Amino acid sequence: MDAELLTIGSELTSGATVNTNAAYLARRLAALGIPCRRQISVGDERTGLAEALREALRRCDLLITTGGLGPTFDDITMATIAEVTQHPLRFSPMVAATVRRFYTRRHRQLQRAALRQAYLPQGGAPLPNPLGTAPGLWLRLEEQVVVALPGVPAEMRAIMERHVLPRLKRLGAGGVIESHTLRTAGLVELSIESILRTLRIPECVQIGLYPHLRMVDIRLTAAAPSRQAARRALSRIERPLRRALGMSVYGTGEDTLEGVVGELLVKRRRTIAVAESCTGGLVCDRLTNVPGSSRYIKGGLVAYHNEVKRQHLDVSDAMLARFGAVSAPVARKMAEGVRRLADADVGLAITGIAGPTGGTAKKPVGLVYLALADPRNTLTRRCQFFGDRLSIKTQAAQTALDFLRRSLLSSSRNQ
Amino acid sequence: MDAELLTIGSELTSGATVNTNAAYLARRLAALGIPCRRQISVGDERTGLAEALREALRRCDLLITTGGLGPTFDDITMATIAEVTQHPLRFSPMVAATVRRFYTRRHRQLQRAALRQAYLPQGGAPLPNPLGTAPGLWLRLEEQVVVALPGVPAEMRAIMERHVLPRLKRLGAGGVIESHTLRTAGLVELSIESILRTLRIPECVQIGLYPHLRMVDIRLTAAAPSRQAARRALSRIERPLRRALGMSVYGTGEDTLEGVVGELLVKRRRTIAVAESCTGGLVCDRLTNVPGSSRYIKGGLVAYHNEVKRQHLDVSDAMLARFGAVSAPVARKMAEGVRRLADADVGLAITGIAGPTGGTAKKPVGLVYLALADPRNTLTRRCQFFGDRLSIKTQAAQTALDFLRRSLLSSSRNQ
Repeated sequence: MDAELLTIGSELTSGATVNTNAAYLARRLAALGIPCRRQISVGDERTGLAEALREALRRCDLLITTGGLGPTFDDITMATIAEVTQHPLRFSPMVAATVRRFYTRRHRQLQRAALRQAYLPQGGAPLPNPLGTAPGLWLRLEEQVVVALPGVPAEMRAIMERHVLPRLKRLGAGGVIESHTLRTAGLVELSIESILRTLRIPECVQIGLYPHLRMVDIRLTAAAPSRQAARRALSRIERPLRRALGMSVYGTGEDTLEGVVGELLVKRRRTIAVAESCTGGLVCDRLTNVPGSSRYIKGGLVAYHNEVKRQHLDVSDAMLARFGAVSAPVARKMAEGVRRLADADVGLAITGIAGPTGGTAKKPVGLVYLALADPRNTLTRRCQFFGDRLSIKTQAAQTALDFLRRSLLSSSRNQ
Repeated sequence: MDAELLTIGSELTSGATVNTNAAYLARRLAALGIPCRRQISVGDERTGLAEALREALRRCDLLITTGGLGPTFDDITMATIAEVTQHPLRFSPMVAATVRRFYTRRHRQLQRAALRQAYLPQGGAPLPNPLGTAPGLWLRLEEQVVVALPGVPAEMRAIMERHVLPRLKRLGAGGVIESHTLRTAGLVELSIESILRTLRIPECVQIGLYPHLRMVDIRLTAAAPSRQAARRALSRIERPLRRALGMSVYGTGEDTLEGVVGELLVKRRRTIAVAESCTGGLVCDRLTNVPGSSRYIKGGLVAYHNEVKRQHLDVSDAMLARFGAVSAPVARKMAEGVRRLADADVGLAITGIAGPTGGTAKKPVGLVYLALADPRNTLTRRCQFFGDRLSIKTQAAQTALDFLRRSLLSSSRNQ
């Protein structure tokens, strides 16, 4: 069974709203093994909508629409589905009673227009909406199913979970699709590709690479007759792939680097403090995005001005004069200083040149030093990044968190 | 001129990634007066992509694609555009040189596959990518334009802003469309709507409201026979609108709140330091995103743990016991403390409960206190935000920056 999504609303085609409904629906369908081949967004305009409906119904077995089910003049989805499928609108007394009840409960007067929502294409089943008045629609055509859902995300999800997914499960969907994402840091896309070329990839598995700044996600997708067969195929490739990637795999699925680092800190019972220069607070911001991070984050110092480095992190004038603020010795002092300042187990420091100005031939824009101090010793690392100011800040923060992660992993091995 | 967007990537059709590119592109096109009739997402699969390209080119004047431009096997956009438009791929020595330079600069070995990116459909112009190796494409067909952009949002945006928008403006679209955006902070959408209802809006002007967390952008678009007429119409509505909105307008166009605050600090010759609790470094991060911000940012302290507040910001045990860490007196002490600590003119402090846990009946999740200390006095402000952890952090940072902006504006008036 192949699906397509048709998300309807001028707020989508104008870009005023980001289309989160499509991503949600595709994920829920994938979990049932129903691949979504195409997603289309059109505005609240009859000709364009009718054309898109007709085209989609020529291609797919299951069409899910969202939006355009409300009581106002620009809600044209039911009428257009009725027209395109030649299932004319019929009044549903059951839906009308639900709409009336909705208004009475809220002590609001029923407006005539609200009853427009009681008209559904003939033969279609209304799908009750627990959060609003507009019901969804389940319409079986000869060999296809059309589902219409409201555009309000909460209402759409509620109807999908309660009424659509159970019906789809009952329909059965032939094969099963399973997918799994490995998240990596510290490797570029092409290195991962050359690793993949050395591995035997099962025929039913597809691999996609999704690079972000200094990270690459690897998505493995298997299509097979049964869930077990799909999972077996996935683990057949995942095991050797993980072996080849080693420590570069920081997590799976929706894991974040800051979340993984947080778990390691909790597991190792370590607290942390961060001294940031060029990243300006971004590393601390990311670490504190994790719920419960107050267990291990003592605090941070944004030592933007050299005076702050001098006064609070023990970076001496002589050192600044000799090595400059962007140097390994200063990074080391900053990490050790913030560790002491906040009375933490681990001190992490970042100093660099985010640009666009401030670079020299010897110390170009994008040069960043990292340092990590724990009770036993201090490690430093030199990095050269490229891009604009924000990109350099992001790459520096990303690499600093990964530096911390790798060091926590090694220290747990050594003890 | 009618546009369609074709966003390519199995991460979109599977729902793994929310499609923010489509919303961004639609907004930028709308600002030029180019309506986007349809958005389509397809996976990294040749047949489906070719079919979607063919259909879109039957309907629209301008087709923008994103994704599938990288060097790996699943990057098939250029080849498929070449096939569908019958403009076969040609090797571009210029692009190849850029790719080589990209690798040399990073001291990385050029991998053969990277040069796949140097093949473009014949007659197409490469659009330089300032952040990566994959160039974009501008391809004029007889009566249409096809633009191909990378899928990585930062790269896609950079090429769109630098190369595509200027070309689209030069193409012209019959009449002239001018648009202008006022950016506001501190007002909700409905308040702005009721202000708009009191004003006479010229017939040729369209107004769109685009709310973000604690900000609303107001976009004014005028369509007129000449540039002057369009600008005249815009200023006829802009002047009374600005009067009604007062201090809530913080900027225009692409201005950011942190950029505007930075300019005010430079103008008033003030330096600043920030003490953050619940925002965890986000305010400092945003302030340091502005190039040249080292002129006015002394530094910041992320006082996540109460011990750090006590030791470095003079917040006493008695005060923490009596009022709690999330209180106006503690915010005041933090602002005054960080001002002294970093030897800055102004101290800004944020303390609150970002959640999801840690709230009580009296101090619920989302409660945030702000404080602003200058040599003469300290102001505090209490806010209640709603949403998840990240949304509360964002709203708190946003409101803190706006608090600082308004105070800098008033102080400049009083002196």
